[in-house]
Amino acid sequence: MTSIDLNADLGEGFGAWTLGDDDALLSVVTSANVACGFHAGDPSTMRRVCRTAAENGVAVGAQVGYRDLAGFGRRRIEYARDELRDDILYQVGALEAFCRAAGDRVRYLKPHGALYNTAAVDPVQAGAVVDAVLAWDPAMPVLCQPGSVLAVAAAEAGLTVVGEGFADRGYSADGRLVPRSAAGALVHAPGDVVERAVRMAVRGEVVAVDGTVVPCPVRSICVHGDTPGAVELARAVRAGLAGQLHVKPFV
Amino acid sequence: MTSIDLNADLGEGFGAWTLGDDDALLSVVTSANVACGFHAGDPSTMRRVCRTAAENGVAVGAQVGYRDLAGFGRRRIEYARDELRDDILYQVGALEAFCRAAGDRVRYLKPHGALYNTAAVDPVQAGAVVDAVLAWDPAMPVLCQPGSVLAVAAAEAGLTVVGEGFADRGYSADGRLVPRSAAGALVHAPGDVVERAVRMAVRGEVVAVDGTVVPCPVRSICVHGDTPGAVELARAVRAGLAGQLHVKPFV
Amino acid sequence: MTSIDLNADLGEGFGAWTLGDDDALLSVVTSANVACGFHAGDPSTMRRVCRTAAENGVAVGAQVGYRDLAGFGRRRIEYARDELRDDILYQVGALEAFCRAAGDRVRYLKPHGALYNTAAVDPVQAGAVVDAVLAWDPAMPVLCQPGSVLAVAAAEAGLTVVGEGFADRGYSADGRLVPRSAAGALVHAPGDVVERAVRMAVRGEVVAVDGTVVPCPVRSICVHGDTPGAVELARAVRAGLAGQLHVKPFV
Amino acid sequence: MTSIDLNADLGEGFGAWTLGDDDALLSVVTSANVACGFHAGDPSTMRRVCRTAAENGVAVGAQVGYRDLAGFGRRRIEYARDELRDDILYQVGALEAFCRAAGDRVRYLKPHGALYNTAAVDPVQAGAVVDAVLAWDPAMPVLCQPGSVLAVAAAEAGLTVVGEGFADRGYSADGRLVPRSAAGALVHAPGDVVERAVRMAVRGEVVAVDGTVVPCPVRSICVHGDTPGAVELARAVRAGLAGQLHVKPFV
Repeated sequence: MTSIDLNADLGEGFGAWTLGDDDALLSVVTSANVACGFHAGDPSTMRRVCRTAAENGVAVGAQVGYRDLAGFGRRRIEYARDELRDDILYQVGALEAFCRAAGDRVRYLKPHGALYNTAAVDPVQAGAVVDAVLAWDPAMPVLCQPGSVLAVAAAEAGLTVVGEGFADRGYSADGRLVPRSAAGALVHAPGDVVERAVRMAVRGEVVAVDGTVVPCPVRSICVHGDTPGAVELARAVRAGLAGQLHVKPFV
Repeated sequence: MTSIDLNADLGEGFGAWTLGDDDALLSVVTSANVACGFHAGDPSTMRRVCRTAAENGVAVGAQVGYRDLAGFGRRRIEYARDELRDDILYQVGALEAFCRAAGDRVRYLKPHGALYNTAAVDPVQAGAVVDAVLAWDPAMPVLCQPGSVLAVAAAEAGLTVVGEGFADRGYSADGRLVPRSAAGALVHAPGDVVERAVRMAVRGEVVAVDGTVVPCPVRSICVHGDTPGAVELARAVRAGLAGQLHVKPFV
Repeated sequence: MTSIDLNADLGEGFGAWTLGDDDALLSVVTSANVACGFHAGDPSTMRRVCRTAAENGVAVGAQVGYRDLAGFGRRRIEYARDELRDDILYQVGALEAFCRAAGDRVRYLKPHGALYNTAAVDPVQAGAVVDAVLAWDPAMPVLCQPGSVLAVAAAEAGLTVVGEGFADRGYSADGRLVPRSAAGALVHAPGDVVERAVRMAVRGEVVAVDGTVVPCPVRSICVHGDTPGAVELARAVRAGLAGQLHVKPFV
Repeated sequence: MTSIDLNADLGEGFGAWTLGDDDALLSVVTSANVACGFHAGDPSTMRRVCRTAAENGVAVGAQVGYRDLAGFGRRRIEYARDELRDDILYQVGALEAFCRAAGDRVRYLKPHGALYNTAAVDPVQAGAVVDAVLAWDPAMPVLCQPGSVLAVAAAEAGLTVVGEGFADRGYSADGRLVPRSAAGALVHAPGDVVERAVRMAVRGEVVAVDGTVVPCPVRSICVHGDTPGAVELARAVRAGLAGQLHVKPFV
């Protein structure tokens, strides 16, 4: 591996409400997961983020979520597969309008929040994501966790799957994330986060909470922007990665 | 003129709620103004309508409206021009996803309800519609009332303007529609509606409420589908037009 | 038992969209479960239904649901208990405004759709319903299925629980409803529906799909209004009940 | 006059999004205009604010707005009078639920944003506000600008009208606010803001932008919480007022 991508969630405000520092993050990441209006993201915010991303050479992906503004897409909703596929397709098309206005197009898809977590374990919702990508553009990559039900289903359907890693999250020996409610869920020390990001990117592995070295074959590292110090940490991760690899969009 | 288009609003249900008989209308009209989710139209309805339209050779246009499900887009909302442009662009992109899934694309744009009425008289909202079309695709036609502020602004911006007529509505001597609250606003007799449609389409004129013959240069006739007998009337209008012209999409 | 209540879901339109025949049902039932705006029910519809109910001597209950207009409250959503309690409390208060304007008050609460089904089996969501009633008015009855997790939790919290029966649904030998996807889920013959309603009301029992006679201790019979022939069937059920009991609100 | 009230908008977040510092403001103001869910304010936020307000002896009023989360209630919407009355009534009832849960009740009503501005000049929307208060509780005061169309209409309907002043806004010689787009719209120097608040409260007058001393008969001073330094300024205003008057809820 000679290059690595850095992705973050962006455009997650809504109308008068803002969340995170989009402009700062757009100077750090190489891929922007842009909210598409169902869990967050009003049209004018989408437009601004897509334009700035295009100016900065940042690839834009559709961060699709449940139709749940009040819950920020973090509450699991049971959808019929067709209905969820259609909700996802709608969001991808809406984002495409702003990518097109910025002279670009939607480059990839990444599910948000409870949809991300559910599609990682549930064949119905994973299938809906796959169906939406097939209906939109079978060449569009899906950004998700390696080994998840979604990753497997997407690969089986012939889609391009891009694995991502979380440098600030603890991993279990089975390669899954430690649940947020359990000890070791978060890695706090900035130095540790940077070191883990580099190890994931360069050697494709991560040290689990029990000390096991676990394979973690990722082409993108996810950073966050909505907590104090998050942007500084993202910059440090980028600097660490840039010392050994070419940091650029995976697509 | 040797051909005429017949357009109607479709896909105006939302979730469990239906409005009008989409399938019946799709066997009558040549252009479908499909609601895009802001005033009506859930993603699964959009998908079904776009697929059936493609199967029937019906052209799909974006029936864009205000973000107002509770008011069905019929309440005027004061928008900043940029914000309205972005709301429109979002809807066009969302509809494109379902047109693409059906092997087609969005062929034209027609504003809905209070946006239709406001853009017909207000330069700010007309400008927002024009801006959205320019950002999406300057070659995409705008379907609207001849002589309206929107028609003029769109033409000045170099867009293709397609005039539409309302065979079941009364016209004033100045070529505008009689307001719904005034006498003569509606033409009730089916025979009259058909005769007016044919006269508009063949001779480009309409008889106003005061008896004046008014120019009415239209390439499309709008019919409605959400009142009792509406589908039968639409069929009669189509039959009347087909006796003298080729009835087919304008685009 | 000398009296029986007849309840139905009402006010389930939203804005331009209607569902069922509210006025017809309000001349048949004795209790109206009025939608409160989250899964259906705009404020003006709520006002009209509450006023007509008051005029007809029909008791109004809060038909509370998930915040999900697009899914009509039929998709299960995972809520934190506090968050769901607050969403329910909000809806009860909103409905109270229209009951007050009609000279009455909210008389009872009945969960809608996926919340009804989930609270019947899930302690978290049942607990949220109970918490909301306790916060609003511990004297307000809860209308639900006898033996459900909600019925038990509400009784344990000291609330008044009113059991309801479904005369047009099949029951299993364990007293639960046959799932809609299984054979025997629906009772179609109007005569059978009426007979089952009377047997539930008079003798507190129902014949299950396997022929077993199952206890079904109900003080209210639920009828539906949104299918063809539904209102006529509801009238027949009422007439059948009125032959042997006093048909009136349970509260 | 021996007492004065200090009011501010609160609870204007929505779900994951926050706006302003509710807890800090609740330690400064005596009346809280709580958003009711239509332009901002989710149920759990409403609950928290109402409970803290009750604990702090702060009176809660219904800050009712248009149904417009995306526009934060700042875009004028044309409503039919009945429809707007019902939307307002719904919000008041919803807030009452959380006041009741906190052992209190809704004490007054104040329109928000574009509804505030429109009702100040438009008889239809002012009438809708008045109708809603009459339907809810004719004894509930309306907080608004002295001399506005709403103030006059409310008084004519027999309602209690409470005038409020804006110490950080410029006034014209006719007693109206200088539009935000014009010079002199905002008073920036904290010392000036405090001095103007005290003069309004003690002497019932304000110095207009042209130097004229204008009558400004107010029983409440409005402060803001969503700009940098706003809470400190609110504290300074309260301290200034407390030097000469009793600072307490007007109701």
